Amino acid sequence: MTAASVIATYIIETSLPLARAAEVLAGEQSTGTFVRVERESDDVRARFAAQVESLEELPLTGASALPGTVGDPAARRRARLRLRFPLDNFGPSLPNLLAAVAGNLFELKELAAIRLVDLELPPAFAVRYAGPQFGVAGTRALVGRPSGAMIGTIIKPSIGLAAEDLAEVVGELAEAGIDFIKDDELQGNNPYTPLEARVKAVMPVLERYADRTGRKPMYAFNITDDIGRLEANHDLVVSHGGTCVMACINMVGLAGLEFLRTHAEVPIHGHRAMLGAIARSDQIGISFRAWQQLARLSGADHLHTNGISNKFYETDAEVLDSIAAVRTPLLGLTSTVPVLSSGQWAGLAHATYAAVGTTDLLVLSGGGIHGHPDGAAAGVASMRDAWASAERGEPVDAAYASSPALRRAAERFGPVRV
Amino acid sequence: MTAASVIATYIIETSLPLARAAEVLAGEQSTGTFVRVERESDDVRARFAAQVESLEELPLTGASALPGTVGDPAARRRARLRLRFPLDNFGPSLPNLLAAVAGNLFELKELAAIRLVDLELPPAFAVRYAGPQFGVAGTRALVGRPSGAMIGTIIKPSIGLAAEDLAEVVGELAEAGIDFIKDDELQGNNPYTPLEARVKAVMPVLERYADRTGRKPMYAFNITDDIGRLEANHDLVVSHGGTCVMACINMVGLAGLEFLRTHAEVPIHGHRAMLGAIARSDQIGISFRAWQQLARLSGADHLHTNGISNKFYETDAEVLDSIAAVRTPLLGLTSTVPVLSSGQWAGLAHATYAAVGTTDLLVLSGGGIHGHPDGAAAGVASMRDAWASAERGEPVDAAYASSPALRRAAERFGPVRV
Repeated sequence: MTAASVIATYIIETSLPLARAAEVLAGEQSTGTFVRVERESDDVRARFAAQVESLEELPLTGASALPGTVGDPAARRRARLRLRFPLDNFGPSLPNLLAAVAGNLFELKELAAIRLVDLELPPAFAVRYAGPQFGVAGTRALVGRPSGAMIGTIIKPSIGLAAEDLAEVVGELAEAGIDFIKDDELQGNNPYTPLEARVKAVMPVLERYADRTGRKPMYAFNITDDIGRLEANHDLVVSHGGTCVMACINMVGLAGLEFLRTHAEVPIHGHRAMLGAIARSDQIGISFRAWQQLARLSGADHLHTNGISNKFYETDAEVLDSIAAVRTPLLGLTSTVPVLSSGQWAGLAHATYAAVGTTDLLVLSGGGIHGHPDGAAAGVASMRDAWASAERGEPVDAAYASSPALRRAAERFGPVRV
Repeated sequence: MTAASVIATYIIETSLPLARAAEVLAGEQSTGTFVRVERESDDVRARFAAQVESLEELPLTGASALPGTVGDPAARRRARLRLRFPLDNFGPSLPNLLAAVAGNLFELKELAAIRLVDLELPPAFAVRYAGPQFGVAGTRALVGRPSGAMIGTIIKPSIGLAAEDLAEVVGELAEAGIDFIKDDELQGNNPYTPLEARVKAVMPVLERYADRTGRKPMYAFNITDDIGRLEANHDLVVSHGGTCVMACINMVGLAGLEFLRTHAEVPIHGHRAMLGAIARSDQIGISFRAWQQLARLSGADHLHTNGISNKFYETDAEVLDSIAAVRTPLLGLTSTVPVLSSGQWAGLAHATYAAVGTTDLLVLSGGGIHGHPDGAAAGVASMRDAWASAERGEPVDAAYASSPALRRAAERFGPVRV
């Protein structure tokens, strides 16, 4: 037994008095049922009940109430609620933690909005969960890039590239000096280019390049599949000299990621596909800021955050908050590499660097590299030029003047962001 | 290579022309990137592109657009979209299927609403995934209840009951003739009453009862935990004579459930805690109707659907649709038992039976049994009386007249629903 606790932060909206809604939520997620039952002593309530730590009213946003919400709409109010759960209610088990802080509560009809937006976890979780094995330093060491932004790309088209074409693309990217290449999240283990065929096509190319140059770009093979296949998939990659495996975290589950971590000998590239289903709404779900803690504890060495000016729904402010969240120290764990992707190209380097102030990043450019007017090599050069310039503190104009690859990129992808 | 395909049905809302939005979604989830790239041949597009199968405009609901939505609000329209994905894009792998039909698409800023609401899967999935091992018939055989609704309850208080008190409650419930008892989803493996202590407290009571009566009520021990612990947790239950394990599906992940299934020797009770995070909104996420197919393929013998008049957000119509969904045959799999819970008591039996027309159900009553004015035994009797009466086709009045336990239940829980 310990006095340690977890604090979960929620955004709620309700027509109940706010304090009453907070109690309903706390009760449902700790000791409650819809009638008080035999043997539910005051002692049990005192020991196990979640406690309201703070409750701060927020302005309404005007967003629609969740379906099934009860109560007078005119009485609705929004608040930030922090609940303290005794750790002993679940112990330092991530799946059992989730049942308490993110279980049935989303279904409470008293709540017109209910989002888990942050977590404060006690050290016991870092005792039980090892977290990232490689992180920033381990990834830098493996790719041979001790400083500067790590530049990567995604194999496109997402699916359908024959193994021999894949090998050719990878060879070109290696020659262009890329640090990192990844499978698309849609490229799993399809019969046209199964994982084994990809590994056997890609790794000889990278090994030959490494023999010649001493530097082996990291290829993140998407090994996402049933839990029972993850170990074999991982071993296939490693046995051919691969230095990274990619898992779609929401497809194998956070628990599946953690399972993979216990077996992994190379960094785990954590893809966040499907996160929008829980993270996008303002009214329901789980924020990236809360979720990324679980992914890091579960062992993600790299974690997708999106990048600024991306093609998805998030504002730059949200993306920057996600990057900051991943870079916030967590219980002494090895630091996870934020992965910037979606619509990324060289012209975003200065604006990104100005906002995040670090190059401990993996910046992925798909179309921005493959679609560069002068080909992938020029695409990589444009990214590297721009990031180096940004890190040197130069204005955008200087980079533009000194990098032909950046200028050509801008012809295709639009003006460089300041 | 096969010509088999998956059809995914979505609800979308967008300011783009509907047909254009459908293409964006199909492209993003199969071959697309934001610029057309080298080697993305027409042949690749033709082979791998998702195809619009049907597109049907729906009335707008008035719900707020998702955050980050672009486009003229006045141009917004809502539609039901069916997309056909070639099975070969991912193969019959549930995690890789999800990346295609439920991946990055939730983040598309062109979509003001995006929900995956149904799936049509080809037989290949049932070749790879065994589905439920016990289902309705296997559960009935294990609990010794060949016909009629199976009546169960949840241990309350959710957490905090000492092992000796738990044993006492279980003994009372067994004597009362209950078929099924489950841990609360909040009761995982906490240090106060860890799984092992619960197993060792409960099973001797049930074994003694079984020795005397020949009938062993099923106790669903919540074994939810890290993937690496599921097998040992399961084995602990089975080695003490337990006949059911419960997993919170969203906490171990669908992939974790499937992993457990490959090892399980007893029915898996599938709890849906956290489903509201993806299922509740009208604007984003995954419907129960789509999700339950994945849970059944992954091996859930029992699956929570809620019940009518429940304390959560769903309307009776939604609950009944969920029950119908679980009872709809799926690729020849053994049928999963729908689990009705939340606010359930004897007075809901007639209305439920009238709507669902079957007793192949597990009906859980927590407060409605533990909180019965005459105690748990009377609570069980009230449930059994009411369901038997409903199945006999009697009107509610007849049940009320013939069952003192039902009459006493109604005094506490309100009028019987007709």
